[in-house]
Amino acid sequence: MLGAGKAAAAMALAVERTWPEDRKLVGIALTRYGHGLPLERVRWIEAGHPMPDAAGETAAREMLAAARAIKPMDMMLALLSGGGSALLSLPVEGVTIADLRAVTRDLLKSGAAIQEINTVRKHLSQIQGGRLAAACKAPVRALVISDVAGDGATHIASGPCSPDPTTFQDAVDILNRFEIKPPQAVLKHLIAGLRGECEETPKPGAAVFENVELKVIASARGSIQGATKVFEQNGVAAVILGDSVTGEAREVAKVMAAIAREIRAHGTPFQPPVALISGGECTVTVRHAGGRGGRCSEFVLSLGLELAGLAGVHAIAADTDGFDGTEDNAGAVLAPDTLARAQALGLDARKALASHDSYGFFAALGDLVVTGPTRTNVNDYRVILIV
Amino acid sequence: MLGAGKAAAAMALAVERTWPEDRKLVGIALTRYGHGLPLERVRWIEAGHPMPDAAGETAAREMLAAARAIKPMDMMLALLSGGGSALLSLPVEGVTIADLRAVTRDLLKSGAAIQEINTVRKHLSQIQGGRLAAACKAPVRALVISDVAGDGATHIASGPCSPDPTTFQDAVDILNRFEIKPPQAVLKHLIAGLRGECEETPKPGAAVFENVELKVIASARGSIQGATKVFEQNGVAAVILGDSVTGEAREVAKVMAAIAREIRAHGTPFQPPVALISGGECTVTVRHAGGRGGRCSEFVLSLGLELAGLAGVHAIAADTDGFDGTEDNAGAVLAPDTLARAQALGLDARKALASHDSYGFFAALGDLVVTGPTRTNVNDYRVILIV
Repeated sequence: MLGAGKAAAAMALAVERTWPEDRKLVGIALTRYGHGLPLERVRWIEAGHPMPDAAGETAAREMLAAARAIKPMDMMLALLSGGGSALLSLPVEGVTIADLRAVTRDLLKSGAAIQEINTVRKHLSQIQGGRLAAACKAPVRALVISDVAGDGATHIASGPCSPDPTTFQDAVDILNRFEIKPPQAVLKHLIAGLRGECEETPKPGAAVFENVELKVIASARGSIQGATKVFEQNGVAAVILGDSVTGEAREVAKVMAAIAREIRAHGTPFQPPVALISGGECTVTVRHAGGRGGRCSEFVLSLGLELAGLAGVHAIAADTDGFDGTEDNAGAVLAPDTLARAQALGLDARKALASHDSYGFFAALGDLVVTGPTRTNVNDYRVILIV
Repeated sequence: MLGAGKAAAAMALAVERTWPEDRKLVGIALTRYGHGLPLERVRWIEAGHPMPDAAGETAAREMLAAARAIKPMDMMLALLSGGGSALLSLPVEGVTIADLRAVTRDLLKSGAAIQEINTVRKHLSQIQGGRLAAACKAPVRALVISDVAGDGATHIASGPCSPDPTTFQDAVDILNRFEIKPPQAVLKHLIAGLRGECEETPKPGAAVFENVELKVIASARGSIQGATKVFEQNGVAAVILGDSVTGEAREVAKVMAAIAREIRAHGTPFQPPVALISGGECTVTVRHAGGRGGRCSEFVLSLGLELAGLAGVHAIAADTDGFDGTEDNAGAVLAPDTLARAQALGLDARKALASHDSYGFFAALGDLVVTGPTRTNVNDYRVILIV
């Protein structure tokens, strides 16, 4: 059993609990710092995310060796979830983890989409982009918790067990498009790849995947569909606006605020009470460093400013993994009286948004959503409830 | 009759056609260059928009003098429409039209909302923010074509005949928020205002408005409601997502694209075929100078990139006044084959968006919407048609 991702420990625990006593089970569950769980038959290792570190590299090296050592009559069970891209970092020979961190950092800052970042990572990795499955002579069963719209397994943990449709050329194009100058060793490897001097990731249709079975067992869409049921059971109509909403968090909030105003003022396009549910990851392009808070909290803060205390509108946005960026909160909540309460405390909502300090703003109000690690990861969850 | 705005000539023509022959009618209709119409009883003047110019200043000075000269037994008929804020530029003493242009230019570039820009303008004007009505001893009847959600008359042409709820402090706060350093004379006047050394705009409840009657005769909401009827008469369900959508055009497009994908992939929150209609003005914050194109064209370009050729999705965004910013187009259209046709022509859609050159992109494709001056102005019009 080889697991990687924010849900790896929780998935491994579920496997341990249901695995027959008399059948051998060994393996490694690699997860984010603070996301481990006591396991009995499987080793668990914690490592760095979103920036890869040496702990992840060591674990990934062990996991690749273990995959190679599995006998053809045994089986490899892969447990994959979001976060695995950073955790499972085993750079190709000649590229160091420091090189990988440098290019990852630049990509994260550039505004590149996560799929684009992963295209580069797959072409610098010994284990991602299908290479873990390719290393294994035994049948592979992969269970996947998806945090991306469409559930493309190649995008989850950078697809260690999935064919990779992207190429060295794509990786180079992405670095060029975002004007990223990678470390010398990275450039050298990608150029070698362009020249055909090192192996491409295994492509769709490759023989190596004939013995790989992959199943998505939980998904972002499933989570927001589940949310609609909860609202409906409580007598509130719920609609999914989209499961793949992207864009700058503060701007996305302006559009959603306009829809909420429309519903309150005109009863279109939906009659209240209604819950507007959406998934997908927004972005925060940091213009003024120093503030704290992630995309979900910033979305809620901007929504609050746009709604300006509009009666009857409540909202929540939270990351289902329990962490909205780098702080200890999953997200934040909004009520019609949020701005008034902030003003009474002397908080300046507009200034907080300008300085990306949504965490400080909602922490002062006591309106953070704090769950701790949920040990799953099915993307972001946003609801605007209009009564 | 004193008219100002993009619709001033068309409105004045309607007045001339219905005004009794035996009743005196004199006045001025001040409109944008290219928006004039031959009038018989009323003078028409064309001036600069969105940047104020000397022609506008001269006309505004004449109009203020005329308002002051109207006898108490006569009547002032004000015809107000969007665009009047820039056209009707009569800066306070000590501030030149060049100063006003400088601060207007910086505000337009900053991403400030039009209401925020107008708050500053009202506090630098002798005629806006209710001062035109205040100058008149006769009864005032104002007819307004509204281009703002909610039809708040103070926002249209910066409200020459409406009470102004904003203050010098608000104007200063806005300049600070957008980090705009205004010309010395502007700063001096605003500081004098803060100190109470010059008069505030007349506020709601002021006696001067007792003899003012104001009526909104056409509105942004009316125009998008009219659009829904057209779709429905053609057998396509139409929903208004919101009449007050704001936000960066390229980011707003990402949210709308997510809704379109949701509809295509899952038939929620609406079953196709459906037209998603919205109003409200997006913004374009210029990060790389040199490109051409306004918020509507940039919205369509970003939407195209986000949809990536998704089948069955068509779109249009256009400014109802006929001009999307500074070029000769009202907007642009999108079809599922737009990106493919662009590629065949060697156009790089991503690069065009990055350099704000949506005009160049759609001009090369022949997909601009070009109407010429419509001589009305009821805000932006965006439709995404999903079949």
